[in-house]
Amino acid sequence: MCPQSVVDIPDISDIHIARARIDEWTRLTPVMSEPGLDQELGCILYCKCENLQRTGAFKFRGARNVICKLREDGIEGDVATHSSGNHGAALALAAKLDNRKAHVVMPEDSVPMKINSVRRYGGIVHFCAPTHESREEGLLRLVEDGKIPVPPYDHADIIAGQGTAALELIQEVPTLEQIITPIGGGGLIAGTAIAVRSTGQQVFGVEPEGAADTVASLEQGERVTSWTPDTIADGLRAMIGVRNFTVVSNEVKKVFTVSDTDIRRAMYLFWQELRMVIEPSSATVVAAIRNHPEVFAGKKVGAIISGGNIDPGHWQFLTKQD
Amino acid sequence: MCPQSVVDIPDISDIHIARARIDEWTRLTPVMSEPGLDQELGCILYCKCENLQRTGAFKFRGARNVICKLREDGIEGDVATHSSGNHGAALALAAKLDNRKAHVVMPEDSVPMKINSVRRYGGIVHFCAPTHESREEGLLRLVEDGKIPVPPYDHADIIAGQGTAALELIQEVPTLEQIITPIGGGGLIAGTAIAVRSTGQQVFGVEPEGAADTVASLEQGERVTSWTPDTIADGLRAMIGVRNFTVVSNEVKKVFTVSDTDIRRAMYLFWQELRMVIEPSSATVVAAIRNHPEVFAGKKVGAIISGGNIDPGHWQFLTKQD
Repeated sequence: MCPQSVVDIPDISDIHIARARIDEWTRLTPVMSEPGLDQELGCILYCKCENLQRTGAFKFRGARNVICKLREDGIEGDVATHSSGNHGAALALAAKLDNRKAHVVMPEDSVPMKINSVRRYGGIVHFCAPTHESREEGLLRLVEDGKIPVPPYDHADIIAGQGTAALELIQEVPTLEQIITPIGGGGLIAGTAIAVRSTGQQVFGVEPEGAADTVASLEQGERVTSWTPDTIADGLRAMIGVRNFTVVSNEVKKVFTVSDTDIRRAMYLFWQELRMVIEPSSATVVAAIRNHPEVFAGKKVGAIISGGNIDPGHWQFLTKQD
Repeated sequence: MCPQSVVDIPDISDIHIARARIDEWTRLTPVMSEPGLDQELGCILYCKCENLQRTGAFKFRGARNVICKLREDGIEGDVATHSSGNHGAALALAAKLDNRKAHVVMPEDSVPMKINSVRRYGGIVHFCAPTHESREEGLLRLVEDGKIPVPPYDHADIIAGQGTAALELIQEVPTLEQIITPIGGGGLIAGTAIAVRSTGQQVFGVEPEGAADTVASLEQGERVTSWTPDTIADGLRAMIGVRNFTVVSNEVKKVFTVSDTDIRRAMYLFWQELRMVIEPSSATVVAAIRNHPEVFAGKKVGAIISGGNIDPGHWQFLTKQD
């Protein structure tokens, strides 16, 4: 009777199980700090560097969790998904490591490097128009053809897998007070919120102004299902999922928005202080912390740096500040 | 009477002491592996990511060791050095953390980012002609003016500090069989060779073809002291130092040379596989491993990735392979 009962949302135990399941295949990514960055941001920041995860993004965690579970459950066959890039590459590698093929529906305007990345890991790319509907249609055709669908974020095993990044972070830095992640489809934020249920860190999310469907959804009290994204943060253009929105509504303290200019400045700052190239989607968390000292000042803040698969055209943002 | 007695070369105990001394200030940099990279190189590679060290290079270890020792010895005053960039920035930060000023003699053709980096950490830049002699002259003037000289590599405390990177690496990966580092002035390779004396890993060095003064020196049996460097690896244009050459002659198994084309390809490979931007100097080690399967195939190899302070003009090498 309870609405939550119709969709399966993982619990913290599922995240611990996911971690044990994928540990052999994922990289225990470093947690980096830099006093110069702390001084700039006014807090004590611990960056969980999923930009250094295999395939260059946290997405490999969820994808590998799904594939390992299929294996455990004795389910054979190739997999399919839609993705602007990071989930596609992640699923391609996760599938390849299990001798499966991954079919990936990608918008025609995807970053070329992300297309190449899917192919490099053995994935098969199917192009579609750059709309949410076209992606879904493309995926549906593949599923009708017998492929096993692996949605990019609105799936219990994906959410559980993504939550393992936060789990590792709080185990390495148990004194953490707050955690912030970007929000695209909401796999990472949902997994993170569930992962810290027993340790109690405040969880914050951040979206680009041009893809702020989660903030709009929270304001309306229900999921906004139509939005034309306009942002350089190509990894965050997806709409928040059903399971993801449920978790965000109940367990995330606040979702911020940041401008593309804020994002570019944060990319520059991160490169300057930590010599790491992070994609625009990841820079949103640094931008949000910088913009909101009233929330983060003096706190021990964990930031999930979601990915490093930057479009070469964006490297100009690292050479000069606006 | 023994030639070694006229110059002070550190022992392994000095490296352990250096590590205890600088540990609070340096970053315990991650050791990264990637099966895709191993497949490409044919060995099991452990990358000690000093590109993620503070100031973006291993140089901070040696510089901080010198400054901490000055403090221990009760020696006050500002410091001076010459540097094409990484040592300058490292000394600037190391000095700043002890409320000293660092004066840095830099060639006029230094990478702009490296000049800015010295200044950002509070260092004072003095430009000179891009020759070894001009650097030395510039430094001499500062020393005559009362500054404490901190040579970039030919100094016992610098060598001991640089050796801490290899010490951390072999403590994290005790089964390592070989270690390879780039050679510029030889601070890193000398510290590395000394650090592994008791654990016995084979030590290899690598130089760009256009700055192969160490290979020439080994062939002649004495230090070559005149060489006009011509390579994109701006961090390796220095001539090998006296102490450094002594250690390399006695304890390094072989020094390889790689071309600038090899270096560019290795930068591309590293970015593709590990999503890290490494400077040309660092990419030399990956290039050497790739070129010499007869030495490295099937081995557990540690590579000290020396720095990540890439000239923005070199980012083009990351977007396409030759």
